[in-house]
Amino acid sequence: MRGDRIWMATGNRHKYREAQEVMAEMGIALAHMEINRVEIQADDLADIAEYSLKQVRDDGRRIVVEDAGIFIDCYGGFPGPYSAYVLNTINLQGILKLMDSIRGRDASFQSVVAYRDGDCIRHFRGVVKGRIADCIRGTGGFGYDPIFIPDEGDGRTFGEMNAEEKNALSHRARAFRSLGEWLTDSE
Amino acid sequence: MRGDRIWMATGNRHKYREAQEVMAEMGIALAHMEINRVEIQADDLADIAEYSLKQVRDDGRRIVVEDAGIFIDCYGGFPGPYSAYVLNTINLQGILKLMDSIRGRDASFQSVVAYRDGDCIRHFRGVVKGRIADCIRGTGGFGYDPIFIPDEGDGRTFGEMNAEEKNALSHRARAFRSLGEWLTDSE
Repeated sequence: MRGDRIWMATGNRHKYREAQEVMAEMGIALAHMEINRVEIQADDLADIAEYSLKQVRDDGRRIVVEDAGIFIDCYGGFPGPYSAYVLNTINLQGILKLMDSIRGRDASFQSVVAYRDGDCIRHFRGVVKGRIADCIRGTGGFGYDPIFIPDEGDGRTFGEMNAEEKNALSHRARAFRSLGEWLTDSE
Repeated sequence: MRGDRIWMATGNRHKYREAQEVMAEMGIALAHMEINRVEIQADDLADIAEYSLKQVRDDGRRIVVEDAGIFIDCYGGFPGPYSAYVLNTINLQGILKLMDSIRGRDASFQSVVAYRDGDCIRHFRGVVKGRIADCIRGTGGFGYDPIFIPDEGDGRTFGEMNAEEKNALSHRARAFRSLGEWLTDSE
């Protein structure tokens, strides 16, 4: 595998830190490129991530851009690609109000990592299925973590897990691990 | 005033028809350019409209792009720039559920028209203040019209008005009228 670093273009330090830990476990160095990336409005995270990636000037470095969101089944995937905006406006309380008295609480966290090395662009997707909790639980993680209970867990929300526990299950970790595996295989 | 038409780049026929009626009253011909425009994620409608405008190839025609949304005060402007997506996912019922038992129901419809003629780019903004109704009323208009009661009206929602009544008050009509006045003044 090439020894030079991969740069993650993001304005979100939480996301960078999670991704960096996952890549470090695979022996890949991920560096932070502080940037306010251009995000388009689109239903598919892959379209958003790829558009952002193409806006980053190609100076020969290997770049990744990640886009993620939480998709609530009973609301057609809302808030999906607009998860950050929705969190900043209606907050977790707004989401819980929308879920009030709703039984089917299935949801998934999804992440798409778009990777560029010269002319080569590839996507890697990570998904974790779960459900929306009845109330806010835990102070770990960030974003929607305190109201998301992964199916593969023990009933705790992501907000109640430490970083290691969350990284064992999370959508972002899965997408980055999948990138890491591809890089290792194609070394 | 120049006699040639202005082209409105939009995939939404409802919006085009409203804008066309307003411009026709001022003696300005508005033509429809069927296009799926690139929309970025941004808090200000003007940034979204201007970005879209710049993606439309300049072939010498005068172009307008409009972006609009409904901004609910108690939710920090939600759904704002993402009004179309939110309507398609949580629907009007979802908005009414979020507003359940909330007394301060102030909201505004906002529209920004971005206009380009060669190197000249200008914005025109239209706002109509009002409040979110307690239930869906009327079948006129489109989008959020059946739950928006304009302050300057008689208590009916936009959905309960005919096109003429709505155009007398609406954000979109105001933004286009403001463009029309500027064009007339600079003739």
